[in-house]
Amino acid sequence: MRHDKRQNAQLRSVHIESNYLKHPEGSVLITVGDTKVICTATIEDRVPPFMRGSGKGWITAEYSMLPRATEQRNIREAAKGKITGRTMEIQRLIGRALRAAVNLEAIGERTVWIDCDVIQADGGTRTASITGAFVAMAIALDKLSQQKKLAAYPVRTFLAATSVGILNNKEAVLDLDYVEDSSAEVDMNLIMTSENEFVELQGTGEEATFSYQQLQTLLSLGESGIHKLIEIQQEVLGEEITNKIMKK
Amino acid sequence: MRHDKRQNAQLRSVHIESNYLKHPEGSVLITVGDTKVICTATIEDRVPPFMRGSGKGWITAEYSMLPRATEQRNIREAAKGKITGRTMEIQRLIGRALRAAVNLEAIGERTVWIDCDVIQADGGTRTASITGAFVAMAIALDKLSQQKKLAAYPVRTFLAATSVGILNNKEAVLDLDYVEDSSAEVDMNLIMTSENEFVELQGTGEEATFSYQQLQTLLSLGESGIHKLIEIQQEVLGEEITNKIMKK
Amino acid sequence: MRHDKRQNAQLRSVHIESNYLKHPEGSVLITVGDTKVICTATIEDRVPPFMRGSGKGWITAEYSMLPRATEQRNIREAAKGKITGRTMEIQRLIGRALRAAVNLEAIGERTVWIDCDVIQADGGTRTASITGAFVAMAIALDKLSQQKKLAAYPVRTFLAATSVGILNNKEAVLDLDYVEDSSAEVDMNLIMTSENEFVELQGTGEEATFSYQQLQTLLSLGESGIHKLIEIQQEVLGEEITNKIMKK
Amino acid sequence: MRHDKRQNAQLRSVHIESNYLKHPEGSVLITVGDTKVICTATIEDRVPPFMRGSGKGWITAEYSMLPRATEQRNIREAAKGKITGRTMEIQRLIGRALRAAVNLEAIGERTVWIDCDVIQADGGTRTASITGAFVAMAIALDKLSQQKKLAAYPVRTFLAATSVGILNNKEAVLDLDYVEDSSAEVDMNLIMTSENEFVELQGTGEEATFSYQQLQTLLSLGESGIHKLIEIQQEVLGEEITNKIMKK
Amino acid sequence: MRHDKRQNAQLRSVHIESNYLKHPEGSVLITVGDTKVICTATIEDRVPPFMRGSGKGWITAEYSMLPRATEQRNIREAAKGKITGRTMEIQRLIGRALRAAVNLEAIGERTVWIDCDVIQADGGTRTASITGAFVAMAIALDKLSQQKKLAAYPVRTFLAATSVGILNNKEAVLDLDYVEDSSAEVDMNLIMTSENEFVELQGTGEEATFSYQQLQTLLSLGESGIHKLIEIQQEVLGEEITNKIMKK
Amino acid sequence: MRHDKRQNAQLRSVHIESNYLKHPEGSVLITVGDTKVICTATIEDRVPPFMRGSGKGWITAEYSMLPRATEQRNIREAAKGKITGRTMEIQRLIGRALRAAVNLEAIGERTVWIDCDVIQADGGTRTASITGAFVAMAIALDKLSQQKKLAAYPVRTFLAATSVGILNNKEAVLDLDYVEDSSAEVDMNLIMTSENEFVELQGTGEEATFSYQQLQTLLSLGESGIHKLIEIQQEVLGEEITNKIMKK
Repeated sequence: MRHDKRQNAQLRSVHIESNYLKHPEGSVLITVGDTKVICTATIEDRVPPFMRGSGKGWITAEYSMLPRATEQRNIREAAKGKITGRTMEIQRLIGRALRAAVNLEAIGERTVWIDCDVIQADGGTRTASITGAFVAMAIALDKLSQQKKLAAYPVRTFLAATSVGILNNKEAVLDLDYVEDSSAEVDMNLIMTSENEFVELQGTGEEATFSYQQLQTLLSLGESGIHKLIEIQQEVLGEEITNKIMKK
Repeated sequence: MRHDKRQNAQLRSVHIESNYLKHPEGSVLITVGDTKVICTATIEDRVPPFMRGSGKGWITAEYSMLPRATEQRNIREAAKGKITGRTMEIQRLIGRALRAAVNLEAIGERTVWIDCDVIQADGGTRTASITGAFVAMAIALDKLSQQKKLAAYPVRTFLAATSVGILNNKEAVLDLDYVEDSSAEVDMNLIMTSENEFVELQGTGEEATFSYQQLQTLLSLGESGIHKLIEIQQEVLGEEITNKIMKK
Repeated sequence: MRHDKRQNAQLRSVHIESNYLKHPEGSVLITVGDTKVICTATIEDRVPPFMRGSGKGWITAEYSMLPRATEQRNIREAAKGKITGRTMEIQRLIGRALRAAVNLEAIGERTVWIDCDVIQADGGTRTASITGAFVAMAIALDKLSQQKKLAAYPVRTFLAATSVGILNNKEAVLDLDYVEDSSAEVDMNLIMTSENEFVELQGTGEEATFSYQQLQTLLSLGESGIHKLIEIQQEVLGEEITNKIMKK
Repeated sequence: MRHDKRQNAQLRSVHIESNYLKHPEGSVLITVGDTKVICTATIEDRVPPFMRGSGKGWITAEYSMLPRATEQRNIREAAKGKITGRTMEIQRLIGRALRAAVNLEAIGERTVWIDCDVIQADGGTRTASITGAFVAMAIALDKLSQQKKLAAYPVRTFLAATSVGILNNKEAVLDLDYVEDSSAEVDMNLIMTSENEFVELQGTGEEATFSYQQLQTLLSLGESGIHKLIEIQQEVLGEEITNKIMKK
Repeated sequence: MRHDKRQNAQLRSVHIESNYLKHPEGSVLITVGDTKVICTATIEDRVPPFMRGSGKGWITAEYSMLPRATEQRNIREAAKGKITGRTMEIQRLIGRALRAAVNLEAIGERTVWIDCDVIQADGGTRTASITGAFVAMAIALDKLSQQKKLAAYPVRTFLAATSVGILNNKEAVLDLDYVEDSSAEVDMNLIMTSENEFVELQGTGEEATFSYQQLQTLLSLGESGIHKLIEIQQEVLGEEITNKIMKK
Repeated sequence: MRHDKRQNAQLRSVHIESNYLKHPEGSVLITVGDTKVICTATIEDRVPPFMRGSGKGWITAEYSMLPRATEQRNIREAAKGKITGRTMEIQRLIGRALRAAVNLEAIGERTVWIDCDVIQADGGTRTASITGAFVAMAIALDKLSQQKKLAAYPVRTFLAATSVGILNNKEAVLDLDYVEDSSAEVDMNLIMTSENEFVELQGTGEEATFSYQQLQTLLSLGESGIHKLIEIQQEVLGEEITNKIMKK
């Protein structure tokens, strides 16, 4: 059995509080077990230089942790004067994932800035960030759609992320917390849509390897987790926005 | 009358939630009107190089804002690769203020790291940070005191901060919010102890000046605000810790 | 008695040499005891981006120390690749103070760059910088006024700065040198105008606090020092410029 | 048919020249079509701080491109003063992959530094880097093994990397060059061992998604490519080293 | 006799392979003994800000070493986040030298970017870079001349560089390798044209000095070496380009 | 005739004021025409890591300009966050030159830090820095010699620097000021000892070249200038120190 009594295929308890902050166009506080992330979405009326004149929008993400989100205090990247490779990887992953769920032509030459700030970390911060950021983005883009009468509704699918892995007791499990993640032999992040399609798949052996058979088990565990996360997203966004997204 | 109906000598509503996060030795979420700051205190068992061998402890602070704590998204200092002058000023102010409230010999060669992260900003973030950080620090140092049987109780006074200012209608007011702060002619931050002593006093004319008479009015408004803030701190910390601090 | 035989209310000997360098629009070498600062003023015919289109000018300052201005060699900020918090605080203070003495509309969309370079340091470098920079700026702005026939004379008051403090023998003194500053319990910088108005007031207890009564004593000492500094500024600038400033 | 006449399951022509440089402990020039990468391995007799005292070794990688490795000149990261997110991601990937192929206990507290410098780029630079770096590392570790009589042979499996993807004509292909990569809908990097196990699997939809069925096709294409790459590695390293690795 | 059996006035074996890379407008691999440098030339259709509107072109150079170009691995400047003084000196030298050989008016408002990347280092990397970069630049500018029908042929002389020095046995020698360079008392770099004119002359005593007489000996050794290098450049560029340059 | 009426072989007026600052072990203000540089020497009781255990000392230099040393304000390198290539070149030149004049074994494992800060610039700042820094260093090392009873007197020769050049009217001249330097075709810096030996020789054609004959003329002009500068150094240092240096 898992150290926190969960079944292998069981998510931690998940909660998404929408409109958590007063200034951003979209914002949520997502809680996955003891992991808590504030996700905000900001609409800016221009795109980065490499997109100008394309007629398309852009989505970019930034990710950070409070120094005491973790058991040991981690040094601020602002104090170090540079962003770590891990942060860069996560930022690029979040942005890439969300772009796959949006019709970039529909939003025109605008940028959606996603900010994910981890308030408390207990494993799975990048997947919680993606799952929460999708909701913040959907809120912001729905407002934009209402104000600007866009030609098409910009969000074209639901999208959520979770992790799966093989623990050092060889058990394949869903949604690893920090204790499990630290000692897992294989760690995989899955980002999928409400249509059961993959957006991103990243599996890594940590000084270990994994077989084709093990891969299939992990994919199936992940798929079930994503389903449940998307149900929660739909509840938070409500029937109206859900219908707009699912009709596309 | 003030734009939010407050009296000139009235604080915004203040709330301090202690033990807000699970990892830090001390943590609070302080809310002053719409300003919200997470303050944490971390105990590290060593001091910076310039203090080694002194037998004394050190207290240092870091301050940051989430990008969408503000109306307009502000660029992360980690992304810029450097800390702005404003942030540095605030960090130095918070650290200096808290050191005045603590017996540094009593904590031995340890560092208290204070982190103030502004989740939502509506004016007065630096004074809210100090008022909240005092409580986070007091919680962390009380635990240390219980575990390590220090020779003396390390916190020697209560300490809180607030702002006062002269608006462009010449009214002197307490606890300026963002709207008031933006158009104030004179802005003053006051940090005082439960014994009514000044720890820091910073008054600035914004392309304006102020007279000796106006200064006296501001000091008196500030003093009344500090009193109320310290009462709230005492309630949050509870009678036992309050008594330990006040007996010193 | 003070270690250098001064009375508590006595300034060190002050000298301001104007037109010290040949290239800048305004320049002085100010000497306060053993503290020596080169202050220059440069007029640039544009303002920073946040001021464009406002019709108003801007004043900004930079401050630095030569490596051997001090007893121990200090590492150059250019070599470190970043500016310290202390330097940033001082730069912001100098700029803010000078802006309070100038009619920014009158100078139009121009920037006055103030550079204060400490050649030799013995305490009070930031207050000497402000007092000297005011003269360099007044020279540069008077030339501008003559050349450009501005609608109004841009300097609207004299302005000088000094420090006051409470030594560890509890004496309140004016114009602390390095020895006094290092051991003072309370340190306060005062910036005032020729009309006796405050521009900035920064009082700090160094791991100490101070009472309302002590504050009043310090303010009164500071006011007398400022008076003498402004007399010296007026002598250096000469009757003609002095009259132009005082008539405003 | 593919733009360069290859079959969907066909690698570009691959060549690995070993001992390309005179100074490094191991070095190769790997050529995959028009992509050329110099890979070197350096043995250092210490580990980074977080590994000290562990008795284990460490493998870390750095990756860079010459400015004119590409069609358009790319600005040097040294000139920018910082490393891009893309470079960081690749560096981390190379290091992680190679660590999975090595018995870190066997090499003791030593670091293997891998440097991959892209001389000419035509797609697939990260997978060519891994495939080439494995050979440079194997040469360096074999020398170390001979000199130091390590308790165990440090390399425990062959390991190579290639890309697979789905082009915008929906064809699934092996080993994408730059032209194909630029317009592919799905891009996947595979790193596998001579035992057919996965070390890393990174599949990404570029503003697109992919189905479970497509994933299976890609995995099978990749596996066949890896087989051929490992045969080339074995030829270059020679029978003796190959046998040492495969007996483990 | 020299440690590698050369005569005092003998160059190492020199080889220049032109069109070494497929993307750049001009590229060579120059080999001088065991020193190997990839030199590329890129034509950009604009000039830096300080040249805009001048009607003239600009030539600028960047220089770097692979980490294992050297016996000991050297840390990448990108990883350090800054360029060393030695690199800056070399970059400025290469750019300045090449500008002396070109009619900058003839190329119009274009920039030639020279990149010199040292693949393997054994002394004389800066002089090999200049000698090789001249050829890469000549190839690129000849192409430009053919495409754009420039008013004048832009290259106006051949130009090469070598080193001379006085070893610690007091012998004056040509083209020092790493072993000789490390222990030389005097080191001089010479850059000269096919007309026997000096472009740059940099002689340095390494904790030593040198006489007028020694200087004359060094100049004469250097002149003979430059002659041979220019012959090799002419062979590589071919008769047609050589004639175009020499007629000017 | 030259624009300031000087003869071709005439230096500008030179003045060296010793002990200009109170803190440094050695300091001067050197004035060469309108160029003014503060040079200080600091003795530190340790050497950089690469010299530890060698038993030898080290001399290193830093160079900077005040923002308004020049006609146009130049941006501080501290504000830019990095040191320009020009500054690095000059710093390295000053350090290398002074090391040639000192017996590094005699000073033991100590570092001499030289700081050259240009207060006012009118051409020749690097040569004035070297000439002035030699005096500051000689003062500091003489004190050290007296205090520490070193085995040998550390300064082994006088050393000074000047510039020579060929103007665009083809005249060869000594000691170029800013106006001349800006339009010179050839610019050469010479550093020589009191024994008439070269320490460093740097000649550069600015988009121009120079013949062997012109070189000889420049060397002879430079030699005469160095003689006069060394006479001034000897006068400032006085007979006693001069004799100690010349006896070595």
